[in-house]
Amino acid sequence: ALVMAAGKLDQADIERAAELRDKALKSDLAYDILESLTTEVGPRMAGTEGDKRAVKWAKNKFKQLGFDKVWTEPVTFPSWDRGVEQAEIISPFPQKVIVTALGNSVGTGNEGVRGEIAHFKTFEDLQAAERGAVGGKIVFISHKMKKTRDGRSYGKAVAARSRGASVAGEKGAKAIVIRSIGTDHDRLPHTGNMGYAEGVRKIPAAALSNPDADLLLNQLKRGSVEFGLTLTSSPGELLTTYNVIGEITGRESPEEVVVIGGHLDSWDLGTGAVDDGAGVAITMAAAKLISEGKRPRRTIRVVLWGNEEQGLWGAKAYAKAHKDEMDKHITGAESDFGAGLIWSFDWTSVNENEPLIDQMAQLLKPLGVKKGNPKATSGPDLWPLRGLGMSTFALRQDGTDYFDLHHTANDTLDKVNPEHLKQNVAVYSVFAYAVAEVTGDFGRGIKY
Amino acid sequence: ALVMAAGKLDQADIERAAELRDKALKSDLAYDILESLTTEVGPRMAGTEGDKRAVKWAKNKFKQLGFDKVWTEPVTFPSWDRGVEQAEIISPFPQKVIVTALGNSVGTGNEGVRGEIAHFKTFEDLQAAERGAVGGKIVFISHKMKKTRDGRSYGKAVAARSRGASVAGEKGAKAIVIRSIGTDHDRLPHTGNMGYAEGVRKIPAAALSNPDADLLLNQLKRGSVEFGLTLTSSPGELLTTYNVIGEITGRESPEEVVVIGGHLDSWDLGTGAVDDGAGVAITMAAAKLISEGKRPRRTIRVVLWGNEEQGLWGAKAYAKAHKDEMDKHITGAESDFGAGLIWSFDWTSVNENEPLIDQMAQLLKPLGVKKGNPKATSGPDLWPLRGLGMSTFALRQDGTDYFDLHHTANDTLDKVNPEHLKQNVAVYSVFAYAVAEVTGDFGRGIKY
Ligand SMILES: [Zn+2]
Ligand SMILES: [Zn+2]
Ligand SMILES: [Zn+2]
Ligand SMILES: [Zn+2]
Repeated sequence: ALVMAAGKLDQADIERAAELRDKALKSDLAYDILESLTTEVGPRMAGTEGDKRAVKWAKNKFKQLGFDKVWTEPVTFPSWDRGVEQAEIISPFPQKVIVTALGNSVGTGNEGVRGEIAHFKTFEDLQAAERGAVGGKIVFISHKMKKTRDGRSYGKAVAARSRGASVAGEKGAKAIVIRSIGTDHDRLPHTGNMGYAEGVRKIPAAALSNPDADLLLNQLKRGSVEFGLTLTSSPGELLTTYNVIGEITGRESPEEVVVIGGHLDSWDLGTGAVDDGAGVAITMAAAKLISEGKRPRRTIRVVLWGNEEQGLWGAKAYAKAHKDEMDKHITGAESDFGAGLIWSFDWTSVNENEPLIDQMAQLLKPLGVKKGNPKATSGPDLWPLRGLGMSTFALRQDGTDYFDLHHTANDTLDKVNPEHLKQNVAVYSVFAYAVAEVTGDFGRGIKY
Repeated sequence: ALVMAAGKLDQADIERAAELRDKALKSDLAYDILESLTTEVGPRMAGTEGDKRAVKWAKNKFKQLGFDKVWTEPVTFPSWDRGVEQAEIISPFPQKVIVTALGNSVGTGNEGVRGEIAHFKTFEDLQAAERGAVGGKIVFISHKMKKTRDGRSYGKAVAARSRGASVAGEKGAKAIVIRSIGTDHDRLPHTGNMGYAEGVRKIPAAALSNPDADLLLNQLKRGSVEFGLTLTSSPGELLTTYNVIGEITGRESPEEVVVIGGHLDSWDLGTGAVDDGAGVAITMAAAKLISEGKRPRRTIRVVLWGNEEQGLWGAKAYAKAHKDEMDKHITGAESDFGAGLIWSFDWTSVNENEPLIDQMAQLLKPLGVKKGNPKATSGPDLWPLRGLGMSTFALRQDGTDYFDLHHTANDTLDKVNPEHLKQNVAVYSVFAYAVAEVTGDFGRGIKY
């Protein structure tokens, strides 16, 4: 259904947007928010004390920043406890190795599991393996992810993490260890969620640090390897956390919302500075800066998503709670790819060409941001809303180094470049202001 | 006492040295030795199983490489056990932090110690502090080391590690945590030895990872911090390890020795690839390559020093055992600064100018190595022999990144650049061949 084109900004709007952009480039607000979150909360895995503190922190921060409305919406999910995680090469040459349990993994029992390593270079090789090839063994997938600006090699590599245990378990393996899905060389393994296919025997699953995967390969060159793994991870009770939402109310159409945000939870190994404290800080700061000037027509709704890491629970809860308000959801964007510079933006609209897009491209050019294409992807927490047909923009960050830190203990504040954070705030401010100021929109029931 | 100048290489020697240099640049031997040590032995802290395996490995490797003589000399030392190492910020904002016990530290007892942080920017500030300033508190020194090619900022920073506990304990502190002596930003703390001054109360001492030191500083900005430290480290029994020695016997003066080597032990957190597996591999490979050509006049003695990390125990034992043979110790060098490229060489001789030095400078120029000065320092394991007046050379490596890895779990094979290792072998081959081939020498009883 063709709808009124998004419309255009008038000259005064363009000047206000340019002012916002330049103000953001001089503002330390996002860095201060991120310093506060990583220092006063730190690790905040869904269902932990840190998660509770994060929810309290977010409500207070929205209020402190003067948002017009602040509230929470419940997110219920099956929790998971990490427990102890240890592993070793038992023979030929005994050495301790550093592992981390994959999120949602079952435990090994306190005495751990031992077995011969069945090595596969890739997840696809495991899929192709005979059933007998891994019976009673510990599967090891050694594929190493490459650095790319858009992180696409993550998509290919992550299957080993999310589906490796199911395929290995189905073929009779005792456990699975994968090389960490990461582009670093640090003795800091990458955790991350995984699932068990229906009806398949659940086996414990862990990730080796990259240097330890290299060590295991060197020992495998010399013959068969006996490996020991001890994980006391276990599923926890059904718990409830919250999406924390803050609004800058629109001056004319307050019921029409532009949704920006990042996810409030993090994995437990690090302090969640780049995943996703940066996204939280960038979008809170952008909305705050906008609120300091003339309010745009529509409401800017900053959603700090609960429990993204263990399966987009907050995003699903929000979509369910707001499924009858989709016609009021104009468009949105999520920042969940670290703190690297934004280099391009894509959009989605039922109207192929939008005059607003070229205006945005002009405003963003000085920030080094190129006009992308009308086939925007989006951060993961907007996937359920896209499923309900909402339009999204993708303000694409340079993720070349993102997977050095992703889901590791190294995800800490010192990794974030304050100047890069400012550029992100500038781009999000221009975007949110522009789409909230125009009267037209980007369409409903968009098919992706 | 002026002695015969070192003499010069004849043209045939120079050609042989050049051949050796070029052969080394194409040889994978040092990398293969290092891969073998880090894969088949791995962590090898003095007094542990790994240490025993390292001694066995070294004897076998010397024999496998065809050294003429291989033997061990005992090294007795007080051992130390690391135990559990955990810490946390208790308030204002509870967060676990990553620490490692400093070598030789006493434990806290199983229930750990708690106390308010007494922060000092530098070790010197702590020294200047009033006695009351730290009574019953946990001292924290936040100084961060800078990157330099020659690592000189390590010398300044390390005092906090080696003497911090003594000064803090003497002023009544309960424990001390220092920012890791390292130039990285990883959640991987740097261990390393420390000592307790005579008669001073012994307090537990640990190093925080750099990101956790930053976190502690951010919390201190908000007021006083309560800190908890649990170390179950403890002194062990008197144990014996070994210096493992391999010789390429000289063709004319076999009793005259040129001493090269590296230390065989490592700390327990990593696999000791750069500290000091690289030094072991470089010097074993250099001697082996020399042995494949015409033997030089003098013997090349590769000493793999035992227990350097906890106080140069192997070096002291060797000096004691060989103190009556110092007139046969012509000169020496130790590789104990990682696997970076060599950029310069210094020498020591009672004869100010040595024609041999200029010949060496010509041979090393194509490797990017500059002629240095006649005031050579040396690797730590040659310090006792220098105390007995032996001449030493310093083949100076670029240590800019060395203290990213030094004494951390990140000291693993994948950090080593195979091409840099070859250049080191080429420089050590030329050096050892040249000083072993000339008849003159560099003097006795040198005062440094
Ligand atoms: Zn994320
Ligand atoms: Zn994540
Ligand atoms: Zn060393
Ligand atoms: Zn060392």
